[in-house]
Amino acid sequence: MKRKINVGLIGHKFMGKAHSHALRDIMMFFDPGVIPVMRVICGIEDDIGEIAGKYGWQSYEKSWEKVVDNPEIDIIDVATPGLTHKDIVLAAVKKGKHVICEKPLAMTALEAREMYEAAEENKVKHLVNFNYRRVPAVDLARKLINEGRLGKVYHFKAIYQQEWAADENVPYLWRFDKVMAGAGSMADKGSHIIDLARFLIGEISEVASTTEIFIKERPSLNDSNIKEKVTTDDAAMFITRFGNGALGLFETSRISVGHKNALSFEVNGSKGSMRFDLERLNELEVYFKEGDAGTEGFKSIMVTEPSHSYIKNWWPAGHVLGWEHTFIHQYYEFLKAIAEDKQPSPNFYDGMKNQEVIEAIEKAAIEKRWIKI
Amino acid sequence: MKRKINVGLIGHKFMGKAHSHALRDIMMFFDPGVIPVMRVICGIEDDIGEIAGKYGWQSYEKSWEKVVDNPEIDIIDVATPGLTHKDIVLAAVKKGKHVICEKPLAMTALEAREMYEAAEENKVKHLVNFNYRRVPAVDLARKLINEGRLGKVYHFKAIYQQEWAADENVPYLWRFDKVMAGAGSMADKGSHIIDLARFLIGEISEVASTTEIFIKERPSLNDSNIKEKVTTDDAAMFITRFGNGALGLFETSRISVGHKNALSFEVNGSKGSMRFDLERLNELEVYFKEGDAGTEGFKSIMVTEPSHSYIKNWWPAGHVLGWEHTFIHQYYEFLKAIAEDKQPSPNFYDGMKNQEVIEAIEKAAIEKRWIKI
Amino acid sequence: MKRKINVGLIGHKFMGKAHSHALRDIMMFFDPGVIPVMRVICGIEDDIGEIAGKYGWQSYEKSWEKVVDNPEIDIIDVATPGLTHKDIVLAAVKKGKHVICEKPLAMTALEAREMYEAAEENKVKHLVNFNYRRVPAVDLARKLINEGRLGKVYHFKAIYQQEWAADENVPYLWRFDKVMAGAGSMADKGSHIIDLARFLIGEISEVASTTEIFIKERPSLNDSNIKEKVTTDDAAMFITRFGNGALGLFETSRISVGHKNALSFEVNGSKGSMRFDLERLNELEVYFKEGDAGTEGFKSIMVTEPSHSYIKNWWPAGHVLGWEHTFIHQYYEFLKAIAEDKQPSPNFYDGMKNQEVIEAIEKAAIEKRWIKI
Amino acid sequence: MKRKINVGLIGHKFMGKAHSHALRDIMMFFDPGVIPVMRVICGIEDDIGEIAGKYGWQSYEKSWEKVVDNPEIDIIDVATPGLTHKDIVLAAVKKGKHVICEKPLAMTALEAREMYEAAEENKVKHLVNFNYRRVPAVDLARKLINEGRLGKVYHFKAIYQQEWAADENVPYLWRFDKVMAGAGSMADKGSHIIDLARFLIGEISEVASTTEIFIKERPSLNDSNIKEKVTTDDAAMFITRFGNGALGLFETSRISVGHKNALSFEVNGSKGSMRFDLERLNELEVYFKEGDAGTEGFKSIMVTEPSHSYIKNWWPAGHVLGWEHTFIHQYYEFLKAIAEDKQPSPNFYDGMKNQEVIEAIEKAAIEKRWIKI
Repeated sequence: MKRKINVGLIGHKFMGKAHSHALRDIMMFFDPGVIPVMRVICGIEDDIGEIAGKYGWQSYEKSWEKVVDNPEIDIIDVATPGLTHKDIVLAAVKKGKHVICEKPLAMTALEAREMYEAAEENKVKHLVNFNYRRVPAVDLARKLINEGRLGKVYHFKAIYQQEWAADENVPYLWRFDKVMAGAGSMADKGSHIIDLARFLIGEISEVASTTEIFIKERPSLNDSNIKEKVTTDDAAMFITRFGNGALGLFETSRISVGHKNALSFEVNGSKGSMRFDLERLNELEVYFKEGDAGTEGFKSIMVTEPSHSYIKNWWPAGHVLGWEHTFIHQYYEFLKAIAEDKQPSPNFYDGMKNQEVIEAIEKAAIEKRWIKI
Repeated sequence: MKRKINVGLIGHKFMGKAHSHALRDIMMFFDPGVIPVMRVICGIEDDIGEIAGKYGWQSYEKSWEKVVDNPEIDIIDVATPGLTHKDIVLAAVKKGKHVICEKPLAMTALEAREMYEAAEENKVKHLVNFNYRRVPAVDLARKLINEGRLGKVYHFKAIYQQEWAADENVPYLWRFDKVMAGAGSMADKGSHIIDLARFLIGEISEVASTTEIFIKERPSLNDSNIKEKVTTDDAAMFITRFGNGALGLFETSRISVGHKNALSFEVNGSKGSMRFDLERLNELEVYFKEGDAGTEGFKSIMVTEPSHSYIKNWWPAGHVLGWEHTFIHQYYEFLKAIAEDKQPSPNFYDGMKNQEVIEAIEKAAIEKRWIKI
Repeated sequence: MKRKINVGLIGHKFMGKAHSHALRDIMMFFDPGVIPVMRVICGIEDDIGEIAGKYGWQSYEKSWEKVVDNPEIDIIDVATPGLTHKDIVLAAVKKGKHVICEKPLAMTALEAREMYEAAEENKVKHLVNFNYRRVPAVDLARKLINEGRLGKVYHFKAIYQQEWAADENVPYLWRFDKVMAGAGSMADKGSHIIDLARFLIGEISEVASTTEIFIKERPSLNDSNIKEKVTTDDAAMFITRFGNGALGLFETSRISVGHKNALSFEVNGSKGSMRFDLERLNELEVYFKEGDAGTEGFKSIMVTEPSHSYIKNWWPAGHVLGWEHTFIHQYYEFLKAIAEDKQPSPNFYDGMKNQEVIEAIEKAAIEKRWIKI
Repeated sequence: MKRKINVGLIGHKFMGKAHSHALRDIMMFFDPGVIPVMRVICGIEDDIGEIAGKYGWQSYEKSWEKVVDNPEIDIIDVATPGLTHKDIVLAAVKKGKHVICEKPLAMTALEAREMYEAAEENKVKHLVNFNYRRVPAVDLARKLINEGRLGKVYHFKAIYQQEWAADENVPYLWRFDKVMAGAGSMADKGSHIIDLARFLIGEISEVASTTEIFIKERPSLNDSNIKEKVTTDDAAMFITRFGNGALGLFETSRISVGHKNALSFEVNGSKGSMRFDLERLNELEVYFKEGDAGTEGFKSIMVTEPSHSYIKNWWPAGHVLGWEHTFIHQYYEFLKAIAEDKQPSPNFYDGMKNQEVIEAIEKAAIEKRWIKI
């Protein structure tokens, strides 16, 4: 009989819903070696009880401390805004609980390091939820690079564009506030593509950058006649050098009209190239230099074959997956790591390294020069 | 307090899994007005108990008659091969149970008519699961046509290609046997695109067609040295005239290399055109003739906005859905119809009409002339 | 010193311009073995002299008979409407002149046969200008099929859509008149895709079809208050069987909104598939079943490599060609055939076979049954 | 009677051929107001006489000085490598001849300034051949921006990738030598996308960059056993700020496998976005925020309508143009400027500004900091 693992989820909004759904579905499709139990969800809103029922949680709490203190809970799942991560995570790991934490891990690299070290010290499993590693097409991209199918990597470019803030009438939210959010698109979107850069290519060694706040003030949420000053970047452009010699090119934007959730990347190597677009996440485009230029071309692989990562647990070829599946795959990796007593990936170390890159980007923008990491 | 509705599912393979998942997820995202309870799943395999647990069913049965006879069951969900539909459905409706049935509804139009009439007579709700009506992009296509955005419809073409049988070494399965399967790609794939034709354009009035069995024999499943004769079509091509004057062009194939689950259609009208591809199911391409030819073009709508059907229950714009979501949407329509005491759509009438078209296609291929429906 | 060949061109409108341009450019890029001289262009309009100068012709005539009778002329290039082809061609071949003729070759299969036989009898070179055979990507498609890269061909579909007549206010032109034009989109567009079917797949053995005139009358060119009755089809749909067992699916339309000059085809065989779209004529998409489903996909070949047909005479890879280049390539084939004393391809035999298929399609539509060719 | 203008072309290789073709075709399709005469082509190779005949030049010379000194010549067309531009251009303008010069204008910004000032002082017309401004789709992009259809521009990104040098066995050419070529992909490809940035967005005000030589040495052209050291960049990445506040992101590479001649750009503004790809140069993708998110999307405009720049002189809609047409359009602009006694665009001022940006990029890469222009 497999071991049951009790989960306490802190947060119930966008990310909390995605995590809840992952837990609800995972055992129907995967066997991670342990059985997660949706024990308690935590939120401060009045309707948290109703939400708990709807999402399938056995109970709910309004205080995260109670969840963390509950000796029955094995896993703390942190799906709250970044500002709260540190306190919850530190409390949880000190209680010896495994932690899965939303990205970005922390507000600063220093915080992230403290969290990483505490988790290691307390010998718990820790995972930071860069879920796009778990798109089967992204995992295929990594596999092909690692197998040498692209040869030596020369260029990596990644762009993460959304349009949600393009309208200047979008009201002032916490994401526009540097104190609350740390940074704007550079961190919120940037952390995802930095993680993919590290996952696919390797460590970034130095960076130059620029950022801009194009819409300088926004109407207050409560009174649209009042304008509040925006203090986080709408967009960031940065170029990097990787430890292995590759060059990198990056853009993040939350005001890029026409782009709903457009994370795309391209890799160019000495023997081939590769492209991915999150809005068509079941596909990976590859170009292999194979010797006959006359029949070479970028080919679009439908990454829905049984041989692709995670797919055989789902549906037959061509029956496409969606965005939410990445959370199920990520949870599978986390639970499997617990079952096998291994550290999962990407873990807090990755969260910390990610934060270091973000801080270097920020510094490079301010100082107008290249910054080493 | 909302009414609970007990579901008994007959079948647990590909479709049974998709239906189970729909039931498992539906209440987390939708409110159909009644609460479905996963009471019992039925299958004849030895591991049905294990499957029941994995999928989230409260119990299991090995005899479908017992499920149908169980007075606690409100809904019979038929997810078995077509040959068995008639007996199960007739038994269920006679017991006054609502029925959701996989497509194609029956083996013949006559059977389908009997099933439709029995369901009507017993005043139950009935639905045939042409799930592709429930892709948000397909529903948007219908909405735009119905709003007159394309003007008068001139042409409809639909192609449903798969490659699963392209390899002549694919062993002999029930789908290759006319007695078991009724027909090949013409019915299996064809019923889907005929349904979309009826959903989007209207009734088909006459048809000409041709079919072919390209791979005449296949290795036996048990002994690959023995060859068995294939008696169902690998591919069918047909052209139609619609009641409203439009012309139709159709292809189905199970041996079309490179196509995993490629259902595509295009509509051309006096004021615009539209294209869809199931392998990119979050997108709909439309061309509106709006007056300035210099800035017109096919545009690719990401059908993930809150204003699109079903989307506001899911994730923010650009967070794409997958194939399985169509089953959830379809179940939502079915349950809502029960809650509101209306007949859902597509129902057995649609299943019957669909079968009539398939029989006409078959007859047209044999008699080598146009057949009226 | 290479032989000079004097050309007389009959016609100076759309096709006459394209042919003139081909002659103007050909010797800069190709060496067909003879040197064409732009001796005389023929047109009945008053400004034919000015046009002759602009296009680079040495002289002009207003009577085609004079051009045909001129003993200095070696080649008669027929770029006039179809109704006039027969008389010009028969006169030319009887004078022993080589003939390049626009498509369709004639108004009926009988006429076409007479023209073919006369050309053969008079031992001249004859070519019918199905120029799309000379798109490098189309030639690559044929090469790959002939090399067996797609295996046995199962399906061929071709669609040729334009929108120029979609607006019901497009005035009544000769193309809307059955007496003048013979047929509508079925012949005008259909002849091109029938030619590609024959070029790529082989002879069509039988056909079923339907056609429609959606816009029944059009404003007169001279007085828009007067309506004239349209007697040629706006669209045609037809399905075919090929001599080699493949199935075919075809559509032609001149009222397909959004499509400017959209000739597309797809070929599916036992080992691969292929797609082409004339609006992106530098590309050919191919799918080769090569053994590793996990890295297979449709790949888009840029058909601009030196190894591709005609390309090494143009520009480096990736420097794309346009529509007009097909005429240069076709003229190259014609002149080379003259230089080498071979019959070029596609010649009047192809023109005649093409017409036979068109007549069968027309008959099948009227008689509502399959017609053998 | 229109004035005849005698042209002397210096250079006969890739660019010389493209320029010759432009002159050969222009008068058939356009009326620039003067009539160019292909008087003399200049090259030092022995076969220059044969080439002159093939390309349609009346005569040839082996010394460029003789061409420049010839009083009959009105226009000097400079299609030689960059190292030679300054001497030829200065000599030509001092003789009062109009000059069309290939890009980049000069080896340094200082040289370029000298050339610009000399041309202005001598009151001649001068044009630097950034031919991609003359793609109809690019001109449409500019028109839409200038009309305000995209609102305020936020982001511009442009990538110019080719693969010709990706193979390390490509022998050592002058392009790999800093003395001969000035720079690598940064200047050769970069000058094109910098020009498009200036054409579409406006002046670049500062830049950060990095470059790399990935393939450090190449086999000598004459003896592949000898390796020569590469001194020009294989690739460059740079980010910019524009005078109007927009942010820019750029990449150039000559070792990007799979990309034949892939110049692409994207513009994002407050009201819309736009994308272009030179390998599909007849298309422009645009997204207009028009109010109904549910029917918005990127639309692909076929830029082949009569209303688009240059198109009405060519073929009907959908009959696509190729790469070479840009040279014809550029020559048309140049000749029209002469006829109308106006300065054409882009002229030597643009060539000079372009060079200033390139030098800033180079400096920024070396000094590892942002450089103002």
